[in-house]
Amino acid sequence: MTTSRPTSTQYSIALRVSLKNVPGVLGQLTTTIGEAGGNIFAIEGFVAKGPTLEREIVVNCADEAHQDRVVAAVRDLDSVDLIDWWDRTFAMHDGGKIEVLPLCPVGDRDDLSMAYSPGVARISSAIAKDALRADDLTIRKNTVAIVSDGSAVLGLGDIGPKAAMPVMEGKALLFKEFAGVDAFPICLEVSSPEEIVETVIRLAPTFGGVNLEDIAAPGAFFVEEELKKHLDIPVFHDDQHGTAVVTLAGLRNALKIVGKEMEDISVVLSGVGAAGVAIGKILLGAGVGHLVGVDRSGAVYDGREDLNSSKQWFAENTNQRGLQGSLSSVMAGADVFLGVSAPGVLSVAAVESMASDPIVFAMANPDPEITPEEVEGIVRVMATGRSDYPNQINNVLAFPGIFRGALDARATDITENMKLAAADAIAAALPESELSETNIVPSVFDRSVSIAVAEAVATAAIADNITR
Amino acid sequence: MTTSRPTSTQYSIALRVSLKNVPGVLGQLTTTIGEAGGNIFAIEGFVAKGPTLEREIVVNCADEAHQDRVVAAVRDLDSVDLIDWWDRTFAMHDGGKIEVLPLCPVGDRDDLSMAYSPGVARISSAIAKDALRADDLTIRKNTVAIVSDGSAVLGLGDIGPKAAMPVMEGKALLFKEFAGVDAFPICLEVSSPEEIVETVIRLAPTFGGVNLEDIAAPGAFFVEEELKKHLDIPVFHDDQHGTAVVTLAGLRNALKIVGKEMEDISVVLSGVGAAGVAIGKILLGAGVGHLVGVDRSGAVYDGREDLNSSKQWFAENTNQRGLQGSLSSVMAGADVFLGVSAPGVLSVAAVESMASDPIVFAMANPDPEITPEEVEGIVRVMATGRSDYPNQINNVLAFPGIFRGALDARATDITENMKLAAADAIAAALPESELSETNIVPSVFDRSVSIAVAEAVATAAIADNITR
Repeated sequence: MTTSRPTSTQYSIALRVSLKNVPGVLGQLTTTIGEAGGNIFAIEGFVAKGPTLEREIVVNCADEAHQDRVVAAVRDLDSVDLIDWWDRTFAMHDGGKIEVLPLCPVGDRDDLSMAYSPGVARISSAIAKDALRADDLTIRKNTVAIVSDGSAVLGLGDIGPKAAMPVMEGKALLFKEFAGVDAFPICLEVSSPEEIVETVIRLAPTFGGVNLEDIAAPGAFFVEEELKKHLDIPVFHDDQHGTAVVTLAGLRNALKIVGKEMEDISVVLSGVGAAGVAIGKILLGAGVGHLVGVDRSGAVYDGREDLNSSKQWFAENTNQRGLQGSLSSVMAGADVFLGVSAPGVLSVAAVESMASDPIVFAMANPDPEITPEEVEGIVRVMATGRSDYPNQINNVLAFPGIFRGALDARATDITENMKLAAADAIAAALPESELSETNIVPSVFDRSVSIAVAEAVATAAIADNITR
Repeated sequence: MTTSRPTSTQYSIALRVSLKNVPGVLGQLTTTIGEAGGNIFAIEGFVAKGPTLEREIVVNCADEAHQDRVVAAVRDLDSVDLIDWWDRTFAMHDGGKIEVLPLCPVGDRDDLSMAYSPGVARISSAIAKDALRADDLTIRKNTVAIVSDGSAVLGLGDIGPKAAMPVMEGKALLFKEFAGVDAFPICLEVSSPEEIVETVIRLAPTFGGVNLEDIAAPGAFFVEEELKKHLDIPVFHDDQHGTAVVTLAGLRNALKIVGKEMEDISVVLSGVGAAGVAIGKILLGAGVGHLVGVDRSGAVYDGREDLNSSKQWFAENTNQRGLQGSLSSVMAGADVFLGVSAPGVLSVAAVESMASDPIVFAMANPDPEITPEEVEGIVRVMATGRSDYPNQINNVLAFPGIFRGALDARATDITENMKLAAADAIAAALPESELSETNIVPSVFDRSVSIAVAEAVATAAIADNITR
């Protein structure tokens, strides 16, 4: 009845049980759950109803089949009555994860005459006279659209706009929780990147910023580029730039540990898709010494025949040494490996061929380019995209503060300097005293990060003279 | 220094003042405000700081110039120091009127693993497998888009999408406050009704319903019709149907007062635009005896040459008596006048030509077809669209409960039966004991109305077999 996969909160269940009020029953219940492989996370509630006790027990399971096995085992117990049980993740999403609440009272006729008719006509007239007033008299001041067509959601692929909604709602939670930004999901049923662009331009009067999310490449590049061109509000493709910002932040701190400078290092970047190109750009902005990108066909160099336009740009602006060949062959002597590609593409031998104090960020999700276990003792600083290893490169460190800063400064764009400033702020948010091989980025729950990022981003926006 | 226009809350200001802590100063201040025509609404706060008192005074003014005069008069006082003042309506709208808040915690890694990655992938996968699950696992369950292009906002006309935002945000307040519906403004920069239709269809995966608002006729008809055809979620043009529902509710109660039956009455409807056509339809559904519509060219009858398609429909389905001629000429012997047209179009003589116990709903905003003062003693039941007269015909009585009921029933449409049920529920929400000539509709602040409307609408949806 036990299971070999690890149990986790995402597969946790809650069981409401009624126990006979006699000694040993709770022990019998917990033993049964343990024997079924369930990991008891919490036992809550204590309602004594005459001869019975009611309790709620939270059990982490390994998957849905395992949930069923745990429930069946509990149901089989004579001394325990299973009143109800539910999947806690599904329960958390029931009815959606965000709500829209009033910021002002509408309790009586006077409130109504100011918040709605007739007083609202004064506000509308003021905006009709001067459109800039919409930036302070409407939700545009603090509200971002989280736009997706559901074409590249998490690792699930093209699952469509309805199935993308839970992810975008989750993102909205994080915007509010970590930076006080009001964000609203906009999941679109469209058939081309052009339609996304057209739709978002039409929607722009409602929002103060646009966060693009989980849109398949290369369409996503086009969407971001066109929207930045047409709109005077900040547009940010988080899958690209969020990852790039946090990668640079982590790299800055990793370099402090190994005592190397950005200008001196040689970096191999595996994966030259959406995130890879953005990482490349931000590293060039940060003054990295040498950078070579690698895709499935090997190193990207100027003159390679099969390059699409974004890879051609990459070839022209990186790899001054003109490296060619496989990932393994270009790894020799590299200081840093950054992966946003595919599981297992990096060999132990390739890591062993790196320069001293190797830094490896294997960020493919959920399975990295090489696992921390494989290179323990070989790599000096190891990071992944996962929360169950140290050094998680997590976008949550970046996007809430970036939009907070852009909105506060009334920025009309998000520039490379703003992204660099965000990366530096994230790196600096981890005190030097806490910096170590297994601690190169601050915790995502450290509320000071988004505040620091916001200030740095707003300052950079003002310096770049792109504020209204 | 006094003003002839009435003061009102929508032009109220707050003054923060510091008074010398000696007798008579507060009297001097209030006298000065009164002499300037300001109407003191509240005096709040009482902070004694040594030799001074700080207070906040709320003063209703007549318009913005009057606000300035009141402020100047206070500033001139020697014993009073004006620290600050602000327009309370503008202050209420500052930063927008709604916010987006989490419905579930994201306080630690366990929360995050259920609400966001990796747990959210389970929810997205469930919806990808069965799209209907989006109705309970996302905000679609409870969320309505308030869609406008800003082409016909209040009495302000085509002021555009940004200037429409404060109105749509206000509407979102009312949805939440009166029916717990999460509503989000969607103000669109578009150049045709076709573009509105196209955009809303693309947005539909995000929302559980669509409330159309302040879209100019005849485009609004087209938009509603097309969206109802293409979408499987409720679509409602509030300017039309909200008004129609509350008009019917008021009429039902007015008829109780005069002791007439719906089937027996003769109704003249002035205005055959968006709202007029909707009122005509719902009255036919309610079994009204005789109905004739009147526009600027006079009575609408089958065979009149200049009719557009919606008026042609109107001509074919009403006015069985074949009345022709001016508004005044068709008023003779009518039991009921309903106006959604223009200020002052109804003469006292025309009202005097009506049948006994005349019922007049003069709903043109802000100035009615005839004022209550002009027909006092002539009309038995008088209603307007205004909050400063008795019997306000206000959409707020309808739309929150209608969407609450439609969402609760998972209705795929809003049918004529659902609107009729809503009207009956609103009428019945006013206890017979409270019914009088000056009290034919419940208060907009009566929270029981939307609950009753929601139940009636959900029941009608189930009866019409249009639920998922």
